[in-house]
Amino acid sequence: MYSLQFTAESSSNDMLERDFTLGDVPGVLWSSASGADRAPLVLMGHGGGAHKNHPAMVGRAGLLVTGCGFHVAVIDAPGHGDRPRTTQDEQEIAELRRAQAAGEPEGPIVVPYNARLAELAVPEYRATLDALQELPEIGADGPVGYVGIGLGAAIGVPLVAVETRITAAVFGMMWPDALVETAKQITIPIEFDLQWDNERIPREASLALFDAFASKEKTLHANAGKHFELPRFEADSAVRFFARHLGRAVNSPA
Amino acid sequence: MYSLQFTAESSSNDMLERDFTLGDVPGVLWSSASGADRAPLVLMGHGGGAHKNHPAMVGRAGLLVTGCGFHVAVIDAPGHGDRPRTTQDEQEIAELRRAQAAGEPEGPIVVPYNARLAELAVPEYRATLDALQELPEIGADGPVGYVGIGLGAAIGVPLVAVETRITAAVFGMMWPDALVETAKQITIPIEFDLQWDNERIPREASLALFDAFASKEKTLHANAGKHFELPRFEADSAVRFFARHLGRAVNSPA
Repeated sequence: MYSLQFTAESSSNDMLERDFTLGDVPGVLWSSASGADRAPLVLMGHGGGAHKNHPAMVGRAGLLVTGCGFHVAVIDAPGHGDRPRTTQDEQEIAELRRAQAAGEPEGPIVVPYNARLAELAVPEYRATLDALQELPEIGADGPVGYVGIGLGAAIGVPLVAVETRITAAVFGMMWPDALVETAKQITIPIEFDLQWDNERIPREASLALFDAFASKEKTLHANAGKHFELPRFEADSAVRFFARHLGRAVNSPA
Repeated sequence: MYSLQFTAESSSNDMLERDFTLGDVPGVLWSSASGADRAPLVLMGHGGGAHKNHPAMVGRAGLLVTGCGFHVAVIDAPGHGDRPRTTQDEQEIAELRRAQAAGEPEGPIVVPYNARLAELAVPEYRATLDALQELPEIGADGPVGYVGIGLGAAIGVPLVAVETRITAAVFGMMWPDALVETAKQITIPIEFDLQWDNERIPREASLALFDAFASKEKTLHANAGKHFELPRFEADSAVRFFARHLGRAVNSPA
């Protein structure tokens, strides 16, 4: 059992940023610099090929911290960011690049690749949650959310299915193949993002994954546009979703 | 050419409510009681069997006025609210009630009934817009939005297709049959609400209508639940949609 080590700290725009490691897993924790109050935690999962400090993560964290005073944490997925790639990682990424260059469907490669990463990442996220809940500003009894798109959804769906401390989640942009049966076990409120003109993930596949969640409260947000054109206002919408379900007011128009 | 006559005025919660008539069409105009500034106008269309003062209309108007300072107007659809029903109205409503009681599909009755009402209502909405734009607090050059669910969408889709003054619209909950070809002519930003478990309008039919809009910016919001369970937070979302597209800040968390 590793303990959480803070390795760097900085702050700007009333946001405190603390790098940490838990064993060999590096992560970042963002918090409001002015509010010392206990606040809910939102865990994030980054997309495939991205990492814990990707602009999409920093941007979402900023909205969640300044909008609601949440604590927000993300860890590098296996083989991503500051973590070493294995030979298998390299092989699967090369195969993916080859398929993309050849204009072949990516699903048959991405689905098993991300499922393998998820198997490694789910226990890492649970250990990270254990460690973060030992911090007095988070605590063991506060509400916890999760947001992940792409690889972040491939990790998040099996994570949420087993991790009962997570009580609301935002997912999107993943093939259903490896996730539908797991999604059927999930009953917490879900917001699900898809791109209506996604050139990588077929529309019907995304609709099937949304349909699979057993949640009584679930909302699909489908926007015109391609895979990487998810509108910025969906990150604002996720803030309001977590405000509703984790029990915080939105401080400013988000 | 009729002119707009105000017939009653009241105010509460910083909202000014003015009843009006334009010829034999009665309507309501809501505005911020404190703000005399020129502001964008949002036209609303009520649902089938409802009317201009239905709680759904008053509630939406309140969110739009207090959230963004918009002017908000609605008129009674033909045969609804304070307007007389014709023999044909009575016959079509009786046929609808009979089908509902028998558990038969409603679409084959609702679609032509609402299409007939829309043919009457579209020129009424355009005349109302003409008259409202003569008010100094609205003006002829300000942005205009439209929101309508159910019958309000059956009227709104053909209205928006011909009325170039309307530059953003929220629709939802209508069969595509009479509307798909018209929707293909629409290119303004659209937010579209559907209920994932709608027992009246088949899911595939709603998805087909959303798909038909030619708009570069369009967003589908699909929520778990039945026809009449559209979540309250979708009315909040519509406020933010109009804030983005009609150019107003949201004053308070909506």
